[in-house]
Amino acid sequence: MLDFTFHNATKIIFGRNTEKKVGEEISKLGKKVLFHYGGGSIKKTGIYDRVVESLKKAGVEIFELGGVKPNPRLSLVKEGIELCRKNGIDAILAVGGGSVIDSAKAIGIGVPYEGDVWDFYSKGKKVEEMLPLGVVLTIPAAGSESSGGSVITNEDGWYKRSTNSVNMRAKFAIMNPELTFTLPNYQTAVGAVDIMSHVMERYFTNVKNVDFTDRLCEATLRTMIRNTPIALKEPENYDARAEIMWAGTIAHNDLLSTGRIGDWATHGMEHELSAIYDIAHGGGLAIMWAPWMTYVYKHDIERFAQFAYRVWDVEPDFRNPEKAALEGIKGLKEFFASLGIPVTLTDAGIPDDRFDEMAKKATEDGPLGQFVKLYKDDVKKIYELAK
Amino acid sequence: MLDFTFHNATKIIFGRNTEKKVGEEISKLGKKVLFHYGGGSIKKTGIYDRVVESLKKAGVEIFELGGVKPNPRLSLVKEGIELCRKNGIDAILAVGGGSVIDSAKAIGIGVPYEGDVWDFYSKGKKVEEMLPLGVVLTIPAAGSESSGGSVITNEDGWYKRSTNSVNMRAKFAIMNPELTFTLPNYQTAVGAVDIMSHVMERYFTNVKNVDFTDRLCEATLRTMIRNTPIALKEPENYDARAEIMWAGTIAHNDLLSTGRIGDWATHGMEHELSAIYDIAHGGGLAIMWAPWMTYVYKHDIERFAQFAYRVWDVEPDFRNPEKAALEGIKGLKEFFASLGIPVTLTDAGIPDDRFDEMAKKATEDGPLGQFVKLYKDDVKKIYELAK
Repeated sequence: MLDFTFHNATKIIFGRNTEKKVGEEISKLGKKVLFHYGGGSIKKTGIYDRVVESLKKAGVEIFELGGVKPNPRLSLVKEGIELCRKNGIDAILAVGGGSVIDSAKAIGIGVPYEGDVWDFYSKGKKVEEMLPLGVVLTIPAAGSESSGGSVITNEDGWYKRSTNSVNMRAKFAIMNPELTFTLPNYQTAVGAVDIMSHVMERYFTNVKNVDFTDRLCEATLRTMIRNTPIALKEPENYDARAEIMWAGTIAHNDLLSTGRIGDWATHGMEHELSAIYDIAHGGGLAIMWAPWMTYVYKHDIERFAQFAYRVWDVEPDFRNPEKAALEGIKGLKEFFASLGIPVTLTDAGIPDDRFDEMAKKATEDGPLGQFVKLYKDDVKKIYELAK
Repeated sequence: MLDFTFHNATKIIFGRNTEKKVGEEISKLGKKVLFHYGGGSIKKTGIYDRVVESLKKAGVEIFELGGVKPNPRLSLVKEGIELCRKNGIDAILAVGGGSVIDSAKAIGIGVPYEGDVWDFYSKGKKVEEMLPLGVVLTIPAAGSESSGGSVITNEDGWYKRSTNSVNMRAKFAIMNPELTFTLPNYQTAVGAVDIMSHVMERYFTNVKNVDFTDRLCEATLRTMIRNTPIALKEPENYDARAEIMWAGTIAHNDLLSTGRIGDWATHGMEHELSAIYDIAHGGGLAIMWAPWMTYVYKHDIERFAQFAYRVWDVEPDFRNPEKAALEGIKGLKEFFASLGIPVTLTDAGIPDDRFDEMAKKATEDGPLGQFVKLYKDDVKKIYELAK
């Protein structure tokens, strides 16, 4: 186990009707609040009205900025920064999923920073300060409600880049599983893939003796494997929705990576896909995992065999751990397919004519991945395996 | 799953030599620091010197109060409160295990409270405020380094009582597994039992659909089952010590009880034992678990069968889940015995002549336990089973 610091102060307020507490909570953080959200879905479902009512009751001044798109854009972030500066806004409320929260974080770190906010994403500039952020989560997937991460797409060149800091955690996250009842099945499925991906990126590590976090990762994956099909079949099953929502937070709040180094190559390869094709992040991940695993599993067959045994119930075959490892990868791919989403680029309608360009962009800041380092040619081969 | 709020802001600083950071961290909390510790062991091991050096370097003023005993006493707490008030102490540093930390918490809540600090423990008075607390952990067991709990013994009647509040969490916890290399095997073993007990108290619940936290609990128990025997055999095995130490924090930082209601009867019965006989808390727990389980398992055979299968690798016997349930209890008892500690009252040299008195005291504030409610006669019968 490696040395680590773990500090996660996000207050989780979880359960039925919890969005009614948003006014009370946000008023502890500021008086002038940027209310940031995405498309019209929160208006259709009534969440918008309940949030506004709660904010008004708490007496905070509301400044609205909607319009966040999946793969949130730098241009809207800059608009948000200007809005905050012009009006002396002192807190941000993000109501939505990962895109909205990531966009809110970008605005929050941009306001007190004199330079270009893209520096944090492209130049490794460290985040020291962020406007206090509260969240009402409506889509369990990105884990951004309690992570220190944010991913933004710069339309100038369609670069999708991330930044990460303990200073970027939300102060509170309100999580009502009922708000996820209306998610279309596709979104539930790709959200589940995203959650499982956060665990797997941490799971595949070269750090030895990480028994406890291995097991916590496996517990989280098994929870998703059990509950996601239930939620797809019964969208209003509170308990399945609740398990998924809470697992989604823990998957990405950094507990599961304490003392270990994750890989993150699959995220890197996926970011190139969704930056160009505007496929959902989880949709891209569902396609990229099995090819990545197939390409790298020989690097640590024992770890892949453990993954197969503990997560996918593959019988341990001590004379042939490689067979078990491959069965685990098959188990993962079949599970993703069973969620009703494409698991190949072809099925997703993504052509093979830009692999070279994507591989180049994915590795232009250096090779991808910590578990196995992947250079441009490796990445290209993995895209080929994903066809 | 039940609604919940989870808020744990303790900053965990984990790894080799981390105690050298204590001055820097505590100086963020206050300038006049109560340095609270137990017997002489931290002086023998050199931790005392390293802490003092770090504190002096950070320029804080040190007020020492040693002498905390296992099952920390109210009289010393009151002495600490006086010391803090007299000198305007504004932060507390606890260096030790659960007893020292619990004592420090009691002092910290007593200083700003005008009444008798025992009110928090005996009258259910709610904790609103505590002097900021930092911890250097030397014994993984109680989980007090990041829990909101404190257990104090009032020598006037030997009442051992607890209080709990989110306002009682430490601001930081420094955790260096190397500091636990010198623990005697007995203390390592009873510490492990304590950690496992915190998980099991949460595990046995009547709340349905708690899949995720069930699995996290099981992951934590399996980590302890695997690593404790290694640490007993190889006291300087860093990785085993690290797994135990980190599992010990997670076991009791309230993550594992999110959305569920724990039982805590076994703790209640144990407290009566250790209040009278001054046996280590974990030592008493090692004795009380199997009798409690034997007495209550019929209340939810499926849960006990799941415990047997997932934690103790008992083969599922679908025609006879009761058999599996009983094998799980046997597995637990045998595991505790394998750690080299007594698993019956007789073996621990505890006589049977005060069962009635203990059962009466344990239930004088009402029945014990949430999973199964235990009245005085039930408790007495469980003590009988523990003989």
